[in-house]
Amino acid sequence: MYGFSTQLKVPFDTAVTNVTEALKKEGFGVLTDIDVQATLKAKLNIDRRPYRIFGACNPPLAHRAIEADPDIGLLLPCNVVVREEANGSITVAFMDTEIVLQLVDNPEVHALGKEVRALLQRVCTSLKA
Amino acid sequence: MYGFSTQLKVPFDTAVTNVTEALKKEGFGVLTDIDVQATLKAKLNIDRRPYRIFGACNPPLAHRAIEADPDIGLLLPCNVVVREEANGSITVAFMDTEIVLQLVDNPEVHALGKEVRALLQRVCTSLKA
Repeated sequence: MYGFSTQLKVPFDTAVTNVTEALKKEGFGVLTDIDVQATLKAKLNIDRRPYRIFGACNPPLAHRAIEADPDIGLLLPCNVVVREEANGSITVAFMDTEIVLQLVDNPEVHALGKEVRALLQRVCTSLKA
Repeated sequence: MYGFSTQLKVPFDTAVTNVTEALKKEGFGVLTDIDVQATLKAKLNIDRRPYRIFGACNPPLAHRAIEADPDIGLLLPCNVVVREEANGSITVAFMDTEIVLQLVDNPEVHALGKEVRALLQRVCTSLKA
């Protein structure tokens, strides 16, 4: 698996706010926000449940990653998906940077992937509290 | 390797325009645009050469991917990096979706990864013309 997730029983917008705040506490800003539901409606006239992709970035760690491998931007930022399931519960899924950054042939990047995963795991755990 | 790239001998802003137009011709819109140079300057007061990360999305293919695996948003959109090198040349790098989507245990996603890679390869080739 290339991600890990948790389920929340809160309204979608509350989940988005909670995820954003929890990321901030661990040093991650949200640089990008893709509203998949709105995009697919606008481009293809397809109706989907709420689905957002947030691009989270911890600037000092991103800087170290780019210094280690200038191509790493192809795998940044760290995506966090917030989506509504058919039963109304909310899934919050995090990119497993330890797995994904194994694609990069560079031990320093592997170490960063592990470090970032630990921070995102803390974010994930804090959401359940 | 998790990406492929080409070198251009044009000004940075011209490269950005050319990449955006070439993506559009193959059905990709740019959903996100991260100015890494500006972000690292603002957050860490670090000076870097121009470096942008564009999130490219082909809506019909993205829809098929999400239908095949609801977690796939963790690996979307398809990143394209445009960066200036020390010698002033511009590198345009594309995520190799065939490699990256091997992380997903789903043959349909693998087929999509191959399909998207072929389109992005066409974009890459067209930039050299």
